[in-house]
Amino acid sequence: MVVEEKDNLTENEDVSVDQTVAEETISEVDKLAEELEQLQDRYLRVQAELANIQKRNAKERQDAAKFRSQSLATELLAVVDNLERALEIEVEGDQALNFKKGVEMVYNSMLEALKSEGVEIIDPMNEPFDPNFHMSIQVQEPEEGQEADTVVAVVQKGYRLKERVLRPAMVVVAQ
Amino acid sequence: MVVEEKDNLTENEDVSVDQTVAEETISEVDKLAEELEQLQDRYLRVQAELANIQKRNAKERQDAAKFRSQSLATELLAVVDNLERALEIEVEGDQALNFKKGVEMVYNSMLEALKSEGVEIIDPMNEPFDPNFHMSIQVQEPEEGQEADTVVAVVQKGYRLKERVLRPAMVVVAQ
Repeated sequence: MVVEEKDNLTENEDVSVDQTVAEETISEVDKLAEELEQLQDRYLRVQAELANIQKRNAKERQDAAKFRSQSLATELLAVVDNLERALEIEVEGDQALNFKKGVEMVYNSMLEALKSEGVEIIDPMNEPFDPNFHMSIQVQEPEEGQEADTVVAVVQKGYRLKERVLRPAMVVVAQ
Repeated sequence: MVVEEKDNLTENEDVSVDQTVAEETISEVDKLAEELEQLQDRYLRVQAELANIQKRNAKERQDAAKFRSQSLATELLAVVDNLERALEIEVEGDQALNFKKGVEMVYNSMLEALKSEGVEIIDPMNEPFDPNFHMSIQVQEPEEGQEADTVVAVVQKGYRLKERVLRPAMVVVAQ
């Protein structure tokens, strides 16, 4: 019986140890489950961030490619203006005419190069005035056959690169 | 004693239930711990991916900005060539000379515009031949005073945009 009693005691101790272990592991499960949940949250957030960044970068790359020529094209506008001004000079003689013909070809190929990059001339003669692309530097009474709010003279042509204005056209508007 | 025995039985059943619970929770702990570890792994990987993408995008943005003018500049090289060819024509008379002077100014301002975007002329006369920037279209015996592997004639100037070659210089090399 002594042995039996001892056994009983041990068994009771075991039960108490098992209960402690069970309680500990249950609290461990709770802790791990909470950690897991938090990490899942952070994981989802970093994945969403990744998707956002990739989307934003694609947009930036697209814009950068679309308007890549803006800087050089803008600087070339003065060059084009000067070339046009030079070409207004009348010359005589075969050599001079040959030279002028060559320069005219250069001028055209320059406009072609700009055009191939998406640069277009804004030359709104007789078109409705559009403040997005035109700058009114003078207004005048409409003459016969002229409608109000129409461009009646283009003082300086403008240029646009796709939907961006590089320089507005300087115009006179009938009003 | 019957009651006692019943109590004992109940206690034994409880122990067995507790043990099952303990085993289940322990296996739950293992499962959660494993899940947590796997998720931590994936989390670290997606974070590393994010860092890589940001780094790569910064580099791409930098390159895109650095070489943004490459396309338009390359197209303008033919324009510059033609302008140079036209300017070789000799003209006479005030009007023609005036016109030519205007075109020379245009030419210079065009080179300035290209330069401000990082475009530089490659004109390696008397310099050591460099296959990165020059294309040898002819070799000839060195004449007196000429060193071997030196550019002795530039048939067509080249252009570079920063470290990128837009067009190599076409040269004759002493060999």
